[in-house]
Formats: sequence, structure tokens, C-alpha cells
Amino acid sequence: MRIGILGTGVVGQMLAGALASNGHEAVMGSRDPASALGATEANRMTGRTLAAWHEEHPAVRIATFAEAAGHGEVVLNATSGAGSLPALEAAGSDHLDAKTLIDVANPLVFSPDGVSLSVVNTDSLAEQIQRAHPEVHVVKALNTLTAPLMVDPGALAGGDHTLPIAGNDDGAKAQVTVWLQEWFGWRDVLDLGDLTAARGMEAYLLLWLPLRQALDSGRFNIKVVR
Amino acid sequence: MRIGILGTGVVGQMLAGALASNGHEAVMGSRDPASALGATEANRMTGRTLAAWHEEHPAVRIATFAEAAGHGEVVLNATSGAGSLPALEAAGSDHLDAKTLIDVANPLVFSPDGVSLSVVNTDSLAEQIQRAHPEVHVVKALNTLTAPLMVDPGALAGGDHTLPIAGNDDGAKAQVTVWLQEWFGWRDVLDLGDLTAARGMEAYLLLWLPLRQALDSGRFNIKVVR
Repeated sequence: MRIGILGTGVVGQMLAGALASNGHEAVMGSRDPASALGATEANRMTGRTLAAWHEEHPAVRIATFAEAAGHGEVVLNATSGAGSLPALEAAGSDHLDAKTLIDVANPLVFSPDGVSLSVVNTDSLAEQIQRAHPEVHVVKALNTLTAPLMVDPGALAGGDHTLPIAGNDDGAKAQVTVWLQEWFGWRDVLDLGDLTAARGMEAYLLLWLPLRQALDSGRFNIKVVR
Repeated sequence: MRIGILGTGVVGQMLAGALASNGHEAVMGSRDPASALGATEANRMTGRTLAAWHEEHPAVRIATFAEAAGHGEVVLNATSGAGSLPALEAAGSDHLDAKTLIDVANPLVFSPDGVSLSVVNTDSLAEQIQRAHPEVHVVKALNTLTAPLMVDPGALAGGDHTLPIAGNDDGAKAQVTVWLQEWFGWRDVLDLGDLTAARGMEAYLLLWLPLRQALDSGRFNIKVVR
């Protein structure tokens, strides 16, 4: 299927690469595609440039936010938390309305004092996005784990762990649940209810970060044992 | 051993009852023990009064915060979030200093708009407690799950799930880890580092609440799969 991915960082690369490998038509959106592809500084997490990544994934087209959103039957928000609302504004309501937007972003703020969230507790980035784009079916998903496990849950404990999702539209959530299974093999997708549950899914990053520190690896996830 | 438990609500009752059943000398602390034992309104979660509970657990003494703290070789904070700092103030530094305090409380605020946290993101209740009582070894633990599972993890999936802890004193954390195993049978106690990690353990409540709603039960916990 045609999938638009907003963001060309490590999360966008992981998602686009996996989707293209599975035969989907993935288009990645960037604020400035030419500049992103021309950047000579390597990504800190992947150790290489976007251009080097793209050479290995030529099937993925790198375009503007508007082109990626217009291309997608579904759109994935893989931008940074601070970049999400501007990216969606640039994508444009014409290209987003009535579509499902899978919001993978986290509102992380990095400072010398440590990492915190720019919105938390009584609101969330996902709700901010939903308010800015009321005709979009926002489904929060995949924000609770490291990018390599988003697209390959079976690589950890045979996939025996949990992916929470939240959103206001039950039909969109049911469809996303099927896609997550088909695209990546997610078996335990747990619907937490309406989009206010995204507050918990984003606040979980405050637990994810010390877990990552304690385990000295991002290669973990939670299983909701019940 | 001698254990002081601050708070006579459902969490305090669960902890004190289980510890007394295991042969420990448990004293529960209350702001006003006579009033708490004289209350005729049933606890909303247990459906019974403290006096009725106490009839079944006569080995547990119900005393003041100061008496409970003075009694304990270790002290457990099982008060409400809003009640924690006043309870510890009433308990008194003389009865707390140089002891380990296991902080089980969560800074929950209940309002018509829903449940939120009174402190979150760049601070935590546990850190507030530590700052107010710098000579106490605060260890955050047991705040991430429902009271019946705190004291009986084996009742869920044979105990195959995770209990995060955090604190600034490595010796206190090592001791608490042994106690949690001996008292209740916890097998996967995961040290998340210094007390700033309590921000994540408390913020996790924002995820715990919709999980509880989605599962229609508090009988669940997370396993950190790694």
C-alpha cells in the first residue's frame, strides 16, 4: 500500500526501510528534501548520512512533507516532538484529512539537566496534533520502544511483548492493529482507549529512559502481564 | 523484623497484613489512630472499616505516625501522595533519620477531569521526600502495581514480572531488594538508578490508569522483556 512517513531521522528510516522491504510504496517527507539528502554530517544514532541510507533503500522516495502525506493512504508521524506540529502544518490538511495518522513521536526535550517532556500529565503531543487536525484519525502507536524493535518485534523474546495504542476512532484503531500485525508482526497490540491514554504512553518515556540506562541498551520492551 | 508502615488505607493494610502473616512486627501509623479505628464508613476499595480489618489482624498495632516510624527498623510510606510529606513531618526526623524509607506512594490528584499527578516530569514525590529528609535513605518501590500484587507477585503469572526500584543509596537498595524477595517473593527487582528515576516510576501511573481501564482490572503488571 501507499504509505507516507513524515521525518527522515532514524525512526523514519527504520519504518520506511521495513515497509519498502515488505513491498509497500513508502515516501518519506522532509522539510527540505534536497538539504536533507545533501547533509554531510552522519546521523548520531545510525552513524551515516541520509544519502548513504538512501543508496541502500532506493525504492523509498524522499520528498516534501506535503508530497509524503499526499502519497499515503496512511501517514506515519516519525518527526521529533518539537517538529511534529510544524511538519503536519507543512503537510497540509488537504493531504491529511480523513486519513489515519499513526503518531510515533515523543515530546522529548533534551537539556543539560536531563531529558524531560514538553507536554505531560493533563495533555499530550498526540492530543495537540488531534486538536490541530480534527479531521485526521490520530492513533498513537509505536512510540514506546526503540526503532529497530518497532519494525521487528519478533527479534525480542519471539515477539512476546506488548504494543499499546490509543485513539478516538475505533475503526482507525482496528485498522492500525491489523496493519501492525501485517507490516511488522505485532501480536499483542493493546487498545488503551481514547487519545487521552496517549498521556500515559508518552509519559512512559520517563520510565523508558532510566530503563535504557539501567539495562545499558534500548533493546527491551514491556509485556503487560495479565 | 520490626517494620513501621505509615498509612492505614488499603495499601497500608495489605502491606501490614502480609508482613504480620510472615512473622514480622508490623505497626501501622495514622495521623489520628483513635479516629481511624472509630471510623464507621467503609473503605471504598475494601468495603470495610479499618476496625473490621484490624479484628482480623490483631497482631498489627495501630499507632501514631511517630510511633510507627520509631518502631520500624525500616519504614514504608503507604500514605496518599498528598498525605506523604505531612505524615513524614509528623513521624519526625528522630524516628526516621539513617533508616531506609520504602516510598510506595503516588502523587495522584483526583478531579472531575480525571486523574493526574501533582508533581511530574522534572521532579517526583520521592525526590520531594528525600529533600525534606536528607538523612533518610529513600527507596522508591512497589508504587507501580495494585496492592494485592505488591505482597503476592506469585499470584500473577507465577511471579514472572518486574518491580522497578530507585534510590540514591546503593546499600539501601541492595537491602530492599533482599527484603522484597524475602517478604513477598519478588524475583525480578530492577534497579533503575538514582532517585531521579522515581519520576518515571511515578509517571508510569499515567499509563497504569488507562491500562487498568482497558483491562477492567488492576490485576496486571509489566514485565521488562530484555
